[in-house]
Amino acid sequence: MSDDKLIYFFGGEQTEGGTELKSLLGGKGSNLAEMAKIGIPVPPGFIITTEACKQFYDIGETELMKKLKPEVEAYLERLEHATGKTYGKGPNPLLLSVRSGAALSMPGMMDTVLNLGLNDETFEILIEQTGDRRFALDSYRRFIQMFGDVVMGISDKDEYGNTFDPLHKVMDEIKEKYNVELDTDLTADHMQEVVDACKQTYKTYTGEEFPQDPEEHLMRGITAVFRSWNTPRAVRYREIHEVRGLLGTAVNVQAMVYGNLGEDSGTGVAFTRDPATGENIFYGEFLMNAQGEDVVAGIRTPQPIEKLKEIMPDIYSELDEIRHKLERHYKNMQDIEFTIEKGKLHMLQTRIGERTGTAAVKIAMDMLDEGLLTEEEAILRVPASDLDQLLHPRFDEKAEKETELLAKGLPASPGAATGKVVFSADAAEKAKDRGEQVILCRIETSPEDIGGMHAAEGILTSRGGMTSHAAVVARGWGKCCVAGAGRIQIDYGKRLFRVNGKVFNEWDWISINGSTGAVYEGKIPTVEPKMTGYFARLMDLSDKHRTLGIRTNSDTPKDTESAIKFGAEGIGLTRTEHMFFEGGRIVSFRRMILVAERVKAIKDKIRDAEGDETKIKKIKEENRQTLSQYEKALDELLPLQREDFKGIFRSLEGRPCTIRLLDPPLNEFLPHDDAGKIQMADDFKVPVDDVRSTVRALEEINPMLGHRGCRLGLTYPEVSDMQVRAIIEAAVSIVKEEGIKVEPEIMIPLVGKTEELKLARERAEAVIQRIMAEHNVTEEEIPYKIGTMIEVPRAAITADQIAEEAEFFSFGTNDLTQMGCGFSRDDAGSFLPEYLRLGIYERDPFQTLDQDGIGRMVQTGTELGRKTKPDLKVGICGEHGGDPDSIKFCHRIGLDYVSCSPFRVPIARLAAAQAAIEFGTEIPKKEVTLVV
Amino acid sequence: MSDDKLIYFFGGEQTEGGTELKSLLGGKGSNLAEMAKIGIPVPPGFIITTEACKQFYDIGETELMKKLKPEVEAYLERLEHATGKTYGKGPNPLLLSVRSGAALSMPGMMDTVLNLGLNDETFEILIEQTGDRRFALDSYRRFIQMFGDVVMGISDKDEYGNTFDPLHKVMDEIKEKYNVELDTDLTADHMQEVVDACKQTYKTYTGEEFPQDPEEHLMRGITAVFRSWNTPRAVRYREIHEVRGLLGTAVNVQAMVYGNLGEDSGTGVAFTRDPATGENIFYGEFLMNAQGEDVVAGIRTPQPIEKLKEIMPDIYSELDEIRHKLERHYKNMQDIEFTIEKGKLHMLQTRIGERTGTAAVKIAMDMLDEGLLTEEEAILRVPASDLDQLLHPRFDEKAEKETELLAKGLPASPGAATGKVVFSADAAEKAKDRGEQVILCRIETSPEDIGGMHAAEGILTSRGGMTSHAAVVARGWGKCCVAGAGRIQIDYGKRLFRVNGKVFNEWDWISINGSTGAVYEGKIPTVEPKMTGYFARLMDLSDKHRTLGIRTNSDTPKDTESAIKFGAEGIGLTRTEHMFFEGGRIVSFRRMILVAERVKAIKDKIRDAEGDETKIKKIKEENRQTLSQYEKALDELLPLQREDFKGIFRSLEGRPCTIRLLDPPLNEFLPHDDAGKIQMADDFKVPVDDVRSTVRALEEINPMLGHRGCRLGLTYPEVSDMQVRAIIEAAVSIVKEEGIKVEPEIMIPLVGKTEELKLARERAEAVIQRIMAEHNVTEEEIPYKIGTMIEVPRAAITADQIAEEAEFFSFGTNDLTQMGCGFSRDDAGSFLPEYLRLGIYERDPFQTLDQDGIGRMVQTGTELGRKTKPDLKVGICGEHGGDPDSIKFCHRIGLDYVSCSPFRVPIARLAAAQAAIEFGTEIPKKEVTLVV
Repeated sequence: MSDDKLIYFFGGEQTEGGTELKSLLGGKGSNLAEMAKIGIPVPPGFIITTEACKQFYDIGETELMKKLKPEVEAYLERLEHATGKTYGKGPNPLLLSVRSGAALSMPGMMDTVLNLGLNDETFEILIEQTGDRRFALDSYRRFIQMFGDVVMGISDKDEYGNTFDPLHKVMDEIKEKYNVELDTDLTADHMQEVVDACKQTYKTYTGEEFPQDPEEHLMRGITAVFRSWNTPRAVRYREIHEVRGLLGTAVNVQAMVYGNLGEDSGTGVAFTRDPATGENIFYGEFLMNAQGEDVVAGIRTPQPIEKLKEIMPDIYSELDEIRHKLERHYKNMQDIEFTIEKGKLHMLQTRIGERTGTAAVKIAMDMLDEGLLTEEEAILRVPASDLDQLLHPRFDEKAEKETELLAKGLPASPGAATGKVVFSADAAEKAKDRGEQVILCRIETSPEDIGGMHAAEGILTSRGGMTSHAAVVARGWGKCCVAGAGRIQIDYGKRLFRVNGKVFNEWDWISINGSTGAVYEGKIPTVEPKMTGYFARLMDLSDKHRTLGIRTNSDTPKDTESAIKFGAEGIGLTRTEHMFFEGGRIVSFRRMILVAERVKAIKDKIRDAEGDETKIKKIKEENRQTLSQYEKALDELLPLQREDFKGIFRSLEGRPCTIRLLDPPLNEFLPHDDAGKIQMADDFKVPVDDVRSTVRALEEINPMLGHRGCRLGLTYPEVSDMQVRAIIEAAVSIVKEEGIKVEPEIMIPLVGKTEELKLARERAEAVIQRIMAEHNVTEEEIPYKIGTMIEVPRAAITADQIAEEAEFFSFGTNDLTQMGCGFSRDDAGSFLPEYLRLGIYERDPFQTLDQDGIGRMVQTGTELGRKTKPDLKVGICGEHGGDPDSIKFCHRIGLDYVSCSPFRVPIARLAAAQAAIEFGTEIPKKEVTLVV
Repeated sequence: MSDDKLIYFFGGEQTEGGTELKSLLGGKGSNLAEMAKIGIPVPPGFIITTEACKQFYDIGETELMKKLKPEVEAYLERLEHATGKTYGKGPNPLLLSVRSGAALSMPGMMDTVLNLGLNDETFEILIEQTGDRRFALDSYRRFIQMFGDVVMGISDKDEYGNTFDPLHKVMDEIKEKYNVELDTDLTADHMQEVVDACKQTYKTYTGEEFPQDPEEHLMRGITAVFRSWNTPRAVRYREIHEVRGLLGTAVNVQAMVYGNLGEDSGTGVAFTRDPATGENIFYGEFLMNAQGEDVVAGIRTPQPIEKLKEIMPDIYSELDEIRHKLERHYKNMQDIEFTIEKGKLHMLQTRIGERTGTAAVKIAMDMLDEGLLTEEEAILRVPASDLDQLLHPRFDEKAEKETELLAKGLPASPGAATGKVVFSADAAEKAKDRGEQVILCRIETSPEDIGGMHAAEGILTSRGGMTSHAAVVARGWGKCCVAGAGRIQIDYGKRLFRVNGKVFNEWDWISINGSTGAVYEGKIPTVEPKMTGYFARLMDLSDKHRTLGIRTNSDTPKDTESAIKFGAEGIGLTRTEHMFFEGGRIVSFRRMILVAERVKAIKDKIRDAEGDETKIKKIKEENRQTLSQYEKALDELLPLQREDFKGIFRSLEGRPCTIRLLDPPLNEFLPHDDAGKIQMADDFKVPVDDVRSTVRALEEINPMLGHRGCRLGLTYPEVSDMQVRAIIEAAVSIVKEEGIKVEPEIMIPLVGKTEELKLARERAEAVIQRIMAEHNVTEEEIPYKIGTMIEVPRAAITADQIAEEAEFFSFGTNDLTQMGCGFSRDDAGSFLPEYLRLGIYERDPFQTLDQDGIGRMVQTGTELGRKTKPDLKVGICGEHGGDPDSIKFCHRIGLDYVSCSPFRVPIARLAAAQAAIEFGTEIPKKEVTLVV
């Protein structure tokens, strides 16, 4: 390609260029050229390159257009030769379309002007040629309207400030005048009136007569396309979507063909396979005697593509051949547009077809079988996030469409759910016990609501974002959740919510779509997801190609079982605290908290008395009751936790299990409403003021940065001891009594400094050694590990030191994002949406790992850790472990595994395989000086 | 030195080793040897090395003691030769002392056993020799007591569990029996009874007779010293204080001398200069006919050292010569101990003398003049933190000692203050207006209290740590503050506080010592600090040697002036928000907040209507009132801020000034008590529920990680615009009208990602260019800079990117510590003390920069920033900017300047000079892989 070549021709054998020149010819143009090149009938035309657009801005409009004009004339002549027609002249006038088309589809640019070449003269010839005056008039008025709107930017505002298109308004007025409803009902005479009125209006708004020089039309059209590249809207679109490195837009100039020249003409759109199911059938629709926009407008009902077989069997078989040719050529399902003009087929567009997740999987597997794709290509063909659709129930599509939308929240956890409205966790649990389906509606949820959230079919909150408590918990369970539906005003007191002037009482039916955020009135039938054999095959293929391990975040045997069914290779995160909320154990846990502070004070006294055994004994004597309450509470929790772990170990069938010790601040376990406090005081026979003051004492200004994680374990070591004991005793029991292998990995959370891990590890080791000795078990029998979560920035940056005490790292990227970016995910709602709008962050860093920043911390932490221990096992257990882009990043920086919620395990398997194929296993590095 | 040499001799010309062997001989031993070597009379002895102690643990006690025994015997023989006495035998028995002594002074190890060599036989000879039976008996009982206690560990507990020493108890019983008060009142016969009783008690507790073999005494004594190196207490002390790399403790065996052998004997302690003032006078005290412990015990009042001139002029002049010799030799002020035995002077110890800050400065400058020290040595001789004493008022020492301590809090901001108790900022301000001195007592302070805090003499809080709001603000002002005095229970309602059963009402007098944390009842007279010429000279010298710039954190012209007087070279941090709290401006600021949220909603609507001018106009029309309220509030603030900046620029006299744009969350500016809300509603004529709901809407779960810093500036850009405008207009006015140079550096806070800085910078640039154009001012006239605070971990780790948009970096290490370590400084009180106790952090990371972690972030950020811009100006403006160790770190990693509160500027200057001398200007580096 020469630098000077600014125009490419396409049409039959003269075609220059093809898809390989996409960046120069744009998406649309390069595909037209490609089709022409492989012998598919395409109306000929030429493409002015994106390079020309670049020069338009580099050397200026006047200069470029001056340089371009003779070339356009030359290519126009070539086009006239190819079509045997003459542009803007009789006897056989060439009519053209002008379209923009950058390498990426981009809203905000000029779209299309059709029927260039018409003027008062050629329009008469058109009547003559087609014998159809109304057609010619209709074509002419369309041209004037498009030219006026798109090229000249004619537009106006009504008295209310609403924008309208004057050229379409005159037509509406004439329709009104003749009391005509559809455009097609206008007669030729009416249409003449429209054309005249459009010309008049054009003059009113532009101050000039509608131009009659077709060359001027063409050059103005080309200029308009170039200009549209830099409208504020287009510039902003590129900024926000970080579209960079494009030269500009190409301009496609193409001979017009008409599907509305009688009953041997027509137009249609089709997919080369069924885009909903993926079935290998020709799928599309067409209209005879119609133009493309008529199919889209939906005024006449199009016919299914098979019907064409009956009406025009030759055309159908030509089209079907083209369908196969395109698929073989592009190795992908195509979305095509065609027009039949007087019995001759013309292809107007081909592009990769959009499809559902189900279709994506089936098409990829079918094309693999058909030999069109290699395994690698087939794996890359399915967007990992699309699998989500295959794993959750959906609403019946038709029924959903017919139901009125009440409100829209955030699509916080995919799936569909229908149920009766309840406003408390308690009500949800009781209803579930009675066998009723409910949707739990809360302003926000808190850990106290866990039981009710689990019992509900779905969760709806009026406040909170994609990473609010409700959203995170729901995604963990694969339960449908719509979060932050702000227009729903919940009144707990009256047990109702208001939205759009309507009132919904408790026990009214609603439906929510967690994939779209939609909230509906009443019941909508749901469709269970279909898990096909194709899916299983794709998963097997993924496993064959991936190198990254996939684990799951799970706190229960049930979730663990479903994760394993989905292909999880172990547990990457068990949050022991979730277990504390269940049933009666919250009572024991609260008893422990209530005395823990007092125990701490007693221990301080004992410490002060160090060396003086008599005094220590006396202190213990005096506080016997408090100390025994503490022990009693821990003793109550021990067997419960042990059973929890046994259940999980059993369901893992020998797979490894990372268990995080107690993490959240103690305050999260206490009741925050007064009724709860009174109840708690009553439970423990203490004054309610004791409960209130404990709650108050544990309140924190920034709980995220407060007394939690290993800080709890180090200040209340008996709690960690109990947890470690429960883990190891459970392991002993499962190994010894049930003969199942157990690989417990005890994870110390929120470590920031080596010394924390060292102390916690030593304490845990002591407990473990004691229990293993008691039960006469060896480390070969229970190959346990002790490691840490890297979630404090300090830990990431000093990971070389921390690795000295750790047998594994698991990056907790949720908290690492909070602390690393300084974003409280509970509060970020006040500025993060604005940040996304301003393009400061391209995507919500809580959903997709912020690779440049937090990702750099993860990579640095990994590198530093492995500098100390080259074979350190490193994984990630934040929410990002289920996000395809983040998973690919984890693969690239050489992590050993990602851990995600059970329902995202298949997505992770596929994304990991894609990463291995796309990036290989080389870890990219650039060294800088970091002082250690 | 040979590996086998485990014992060193000292005494006269035979002396082996000296201070150069401190690590092998310990501190005490090496100084004894050194004195002997330079001809100072020291009772001879020998030192068993720390290497021997190491072998004691390496090869085991039995093995080492077996190996050591013949060597000890050989050295004992040598000592006998040197003294002409025989150990454990007549006719001239040698008596010995055994003392431990590591290279660093270390509590927790065995201290001293005196009078070894006494037994029933030699004791009789001693009577004969001295003719003083009581002296011999007294020496013997001391030996039995020390040996029993220190070597044998005899100890017991009473019925209440209190530990007691049975060997001292028997003596007390005998004193009681004879109704005798002082030890000295016991007659020889009484003393005989004591010796007998001690022997009996020894037998009771050890099951053996008191041993009579002096060699056994010696070997047991040596063994006890070695064992004491590894007692749990000593091990823990070394762990906590990170004392590493020591071999062990040495054992000093030395001939005894006695100061209690009559009126020609005596003992004393002295400093070679006055340790309080630094004056070059001999300063000390002595007692005739006494032993060392008698001077310390304070039973008899010692005489000042000059008196010795009269009593024993020869001894005095010998001592005075030694004093000068030691100073010339050690080039430092010494703390010495001596004994005169029958008219002969013996030196028993010399070590570097402790001194006050004032003395340290004077001594260093004097010794420089005297030619004893070089400039560098003189600078290194003054601990930078000691300067603090020179800069704040103190209590009259005697008066303070005599006043009863009420409670102890944290020494949050140094100085002393006396005043009447008040409980509200308002009361403090009003009292100040009346000319009354008050101490503001609060549970905690908040930004609302600023006015009252400023008006008070001192601040006392019952909650909060060294970096609580009260502490930080007080230190900034150099105002005395005691924080977190937990035992003081403040009752705002009743306007009183309770402590130790006492009640203090409003207007009662108290006194607080911010350097020690002490709280006293009543008034204590204060002494103003004396700033001497020596101090100025030390500062000049420091400036000559330092390379690090020193700026100050200051928000007012007054503070700026005092900082400049202290030597600040500019402002490193002006917090614009502190100005908003003053006087009436809080009203304007609150008005702004009250409408800001509504304005944001309006702007969203306008944005949605983009391109539709009519609609936009309509929205603006409808919300005219809200928008104008917003503008009005900002318009009110503009001239106030402008005047603030003018004042500061004026006081800076051309020095650079870093101004941080609005940083704290808006909620901090709103009233949180109901009365305040009602008042605010009344001020603005809005329903109080509007105020309440605004306060509620701005509440955050983790305000530290919330809507603050540049997040405010990006979501409410008009506020930043106003601030930037005020800065530049002030600069224009000062430059144009007053002819004073201005170098404003606009600092965007809390940047985490380049894009934030880019947007904020562009917006600020637009405002600046507009104003400079309006006033026809060039960038040469106002050489402004725009930079950022690096305080979010993400920013530190992506500083290479951020530097692209920044002209300077200032590390905000307070917040960087909070986010980097994940510690909320408001909440860390629940675990940080325990962390310090456990040795997880050696020092509070909010007081001294955590060099390993947060320091690594600072260094990484600096390196990365300069990778992009090699001459990027980098400073630090967190609290650490005033901490000597942190300042030295900043020097080492190559920062351009530190910024600290005015009162710490001198400390910073000295610390910076010390850093330059200690570390030079080479930046130490070790490369690791960091992926960027």
